[in-house]
Amino acid sequence: MADVCNRSNRFLRALRRQPVDATPVWIMRQAGRYLPEYRATRERAGSFLALAQTPELACEVTLQPVERFELDAAILFSDILTVPDAMGLGLHFVEGEGPKFRRPIRSAADVTKLGVPDPESSLRYVMDAVRLIRHELRGRVPLIGFAGSPWTLACYMIEGEGSRDFARVKAFALNEPAAMHKLLDTNARAVAAYLAAQAAAGAQALMVFDSWGGMLAPAMFEEFSARYLARIAASLREDMHARDVPLIVFSKGANASLETLADTGCEALGVDWTITLDTARRRVGDRVTLQGNLDPATLLASPKVIRREVQRVLDDFGPHPGHVFNLGHGITPDVDPEHVAVLVDAVHGV
Amino acid sequence: MADVCNRSNRFLRALRRQPVDATPVWIMRQAGRYLPEYRATRERAGSFLALAQTPELACEVTLQPVERFELDAAILFSDILTVPDAMGLGLHFVEGEGPKFRRPIRSAADVTKLGVPDPESSLRYVMDAVRLIRHELRGRVPLIGFAGSPWTLACYMIEGEGSRDFARVKAFALNEPAAMHKLLDTNARAVAAYLAAQAAAGAQALMVFDSWGGMLAPAMFEEFSARYLARIAASLREDMHARDVPLIVFSKGANASLETLADTGCEALGVDWTITLDTARRRVGDRVTLQGNLDPATLLASPKVIRREVQRVLDDFGPHPGHVFNLGHGITPDVDPEHVAVLVDAVHGV
Repeated sequence: MADVCNRSNRFLRALRRQPVDATPVWIMRQAGRYLPEYRATRERAGSFLALAQTPELACEVTLQPVERFELDAAILFSDILTVPDAMGLGLHFVEGEGPKFRRPIRSAADVTKLGVPDPESSLRYVMDAVRLIRHELRGRVPLIGFAGSPWTLACYMIEGEGSRDFARVKAFALNEPAAMHKLLDTNARAVAAYLAAQAAAGAQALMVFDSWGGMLAPAMFEEFSARYLARIAASLREDMHARDVPLIVFSKGANASLETLADTGCEALGVDWTITLDTARRRVGDRVTLQGNLDPATLLASPKVIRREVQRVLDDFGPHPGHVFNLGHGITPDVDPEHVAVLVDAVHGV
Repeated sequence: MADVCNRSNRFLRALRRQPVDATPVWIMRQAGRYLPEYRATRERAGSFLALAQTPELACEVTLQPVERFELDAAILFSDILTVPDAMGLGLHFVEGEGPKFRRPIRSAADVTKLGVPDPESSLRYVMDAVRLIRHELRGRVPLIGFAGSPWTLACYMIEGEGSRDFARVKAFALNEPAAMHKLLDTNARAVAAYLAAQAAAGAQALMVFDSWGGMLAPAMFEEFSARYLARIAASLREDMHARDVPLIVFSKGANASLETLADTGCEALGVDWTITLDTARRRVGDRVTLQGNLDPATLLASPKVIRREVQRVLDDFGPHPGHVFNLGHGITPDVDPEHVAVLVDAVHGV
């Protein structure tokens, strides 16, 4: 019976490029504001951070989309900036403005003060959430753990908040490459330890979000982002808990560097919607699974259009093993949940 | 003496892939807030729109960077949204928020009310600026005229302002394709007439900014953006004034569709910094000139780093004809003008 494929394992099988009974699907930010039940729990929590830092509430919202839709994976409800917060930078959220750090990195001297947090102490709330979610899922679908990439963390750590062009962090990288590499090395060690701890706590797949890698020219991307993604992959391969846990890397917008990303040692690549999956697959071959890549805006169109566009993505990938369906970016708050049901059914062919 | 190459013609020669004495360079948004003399004129004008709509002031700021630096082209100081403004949508600027329209397009019925503006009446202030600038340049460097692309205009016309994800305009395109094509057809005819009139008024090169084409998946890009860029190119080829005026197309972020863009009939392609020029050139061959592609953030680095990164872009393109050096996006207000001088000298090899 080892080859039975169903909702409990088709996601992990697709990550390993094994045959599946239907293309697995999950949705970035699937536990989010488009769901009324999420908004209710978020209201009860009082703030986004309280929601993310209370294991029972994080567990509750993680399970909501999996209970409502026939999704093939759950993803830990958390934030990509937990690691620099645990380093002492003081993460907080300003309503309508996104995440900010109270003590951003502004100099090479600031970098030397940073240490690698112990996941089971300062990030214990995340590990508790992983253990609880894994227990509550009761094997229905696998659980994905995640972290921000070293470069993307550095973007927020140096800018102190989001940015349109990330000019400050780029100037830091160009003018103080040694300090930047020290920061990225610290981040890579911290992220690797954090992901390994999530695997030990029960995460069955791991994902690294390199949200701002695509802002870099290819040579800088290779030097300041991809190199550290490869270090994380190598480090996880040597960890007793993470060794067999598939790693997904998503560098949004870094489509010029897909080959480089496929060589980092990850099992799967997230792909945004600005490139077709058949082009992506032609470039990276079958050495990695591809995850993506419907434009999130498609969910604002009619069910008929959603079904057509889902089919276009499935056709783009073609009849090969190794496709996990997803959006090319997170789902937006204005989406009608009924449209998500249409998408999931269309992917599964029902 | 027809083959003498100097500052007055090396830009136009490079656009035609003829040999040049040095790689020509200009900078997107070169007449902008990073220049103290620009800020002084802008202050006198009272508002951005007053500056853009007063030919004498538009001329003044257009010439400022050409007088300060050894740039090889001037570009008309104007805005990409002049055409929908002339259609009656009511362009205005809210400080710190960018452009907005008072009467955005919200339905198929709104689309049918739009006409093609006569450039010499409702856009007369632009034509007067072109004539004046051309006169004041006295042949020192060529003048580039420009317009927004049909798709990018539609983005602002339907959203009513800028957007992070342009979900409203994408949903309109997906749900009401006939109305969207009618809008894009009107925009394409209006832009072609506008560019032809700029050529008649003295513009020596023309550029179409498809600032938001890169937000589209490749199939949608082809259907809703590239097709209308090709129509503009075809229309200009049949115009007695524009026929011999080189056309540059810049679809920021649409790097998956470079081949499609090279087939629109333009003479040159703008390229952003997320792909190397040697990759771009390998894909489009020598049928178009490439314009780009230094990351604008590089100008925040030290002169030494600027020189190294300029050389990297020059080396990426290699020793072929058909390169116009530029940034991969507009220069930002925080750049030290001295750094622009460093860049220009580095490109020219002095």
